[in-house]
Amino acid sequence: MPEALDKLIATLGRLPGIGRRSAERIAMAILRDPAGSGAELLGVLQNSLQQLIPCRTCGNITLRSQDPCVLCTDPRRDSRILCVVEEPLDILTMERAGVYRGRYHALMGKLSPMRGEGVRNLRVDELVSRIRKEGVAEVLLALNSDVESDATAAYLHEVLATQNVNVTRLARGLPAGSGLSYTDPITLTRALENRQTW
Amino acid sequence: MPEALDKLIATLGRLPGIGRRSAERIAMAILRDPAGSGAELLGVLQNSLQQLIPCRTCGNITLRSQDPCVLCTDPRRDSRILCVVEEPLDILTMERAGVYRGRYHALMGKLSPMRGEGVRNLRVDELVSRIRKEGVAEVLLALNSDVESDATAAYLHEVLATQNVNVTRLARGLPAGSGLSYTDPITLTRALENRQTW
Repeated sequence: MPEALDKLIATLGRLPGIGRRSAERIAMAILRDPAGSGAELLGVLQNSLQQLIPCRTCGNITLRSQDPCVLCTDPRRDSRILCVVEEPLDILTMERAGVYRGRYHALMGKLSPMRGEGVRNLRVDELVSRIRKEGVAEVLLALNSDVESDATAAYLHEVLATQNVNVTRLARGLPAGSGLSYTDPITLTRALENRQTW
Repeated sequence: MPEALDKLIATLGRLPGIGRRSAERIAMAILRDPAGSGAELLGVLQNSLQQLIPCRTCGNITLRSQDPCVLCTDPRRDSRILCVVEEPLDILTMERAGVYRGRYHALMGKLSPMRGEGVRNLRVDELVSRIRKEGVAEVLLALNSDVESDATAAYLHEVLATQNVNVTRLARGLPAGSGLSYTDPITLTRALENRQTW
């Protein structure tokens, strides 16, 4: 196999959700038709990297010419509540639900000793300074629910304890549309502990 | 969502095995770190498209500076047997098994009326002219086993009947490591029909 092909497959294989076999399929699909789908992907990628950046304030992907982004500058959004997420993708997910009307702050990662990612890699100083500057009353932690994310939440809780701010987090419980018999013990334990009067 | 982001997600979503949600994850992974993984992917893709092309003879992905490819020029490979596959990726799969020592010919597709792909889109004329020029004695059809691939095989069978060549195809039967009770009826029917004396 030519080295250039090997390198393309390896690079594609480092993208999220792409394994070795998928990377091979994609590389071949690009290279079998270099003037068609290959050139198209290259052009679109080049254009995206020229035009788009993470918002300097919240981390949401935005146009270079619109930084801070529309979510940070929309006067109808409530600046008193700040939703902390791990990644820009999470902002997209939150916005899709369409019920949150406050501001965002992406940490750009989580505490992960395994991958050598510590406190310095996270946008925590920026978070603290925003809380002061923007008059934030509530910080809503919307992190994932794995061990590393829980550690990140615990760390943020400690940092934010010194700030004059209310810290909340997303509820844990049964996901919508799920059957009770398919629910894992940890989810069920949390749903029980957090049971609500109805 | 900025139009450039929408377009990147749509383009990634047309790659094989990538759905809308995966495309979003990948787009965000590229754009959250534009100078890092974004620039790396762009560079590797650019380099690959400059250096690699489908081999003019067999369709295998090869260096622009090595066309025909190593498989077509290796004197130790048997030119009398020609393996016909649908895509360059299939050549990679065949080579990985490591038992085939003949030459290859990728059709670059299959008959697919649904997608408007007919005989003209396939490299069949090139196949016929190679059979004559290279003195091929056996054409081994190594196509997939779906309806469109079967139709392609039937069409090739007809075309090759006029050539002085032996046409074979890969055996159908139980895959290695599978349990009988997991086998679908069609596979089992073929395994029965093609049962071997042992």
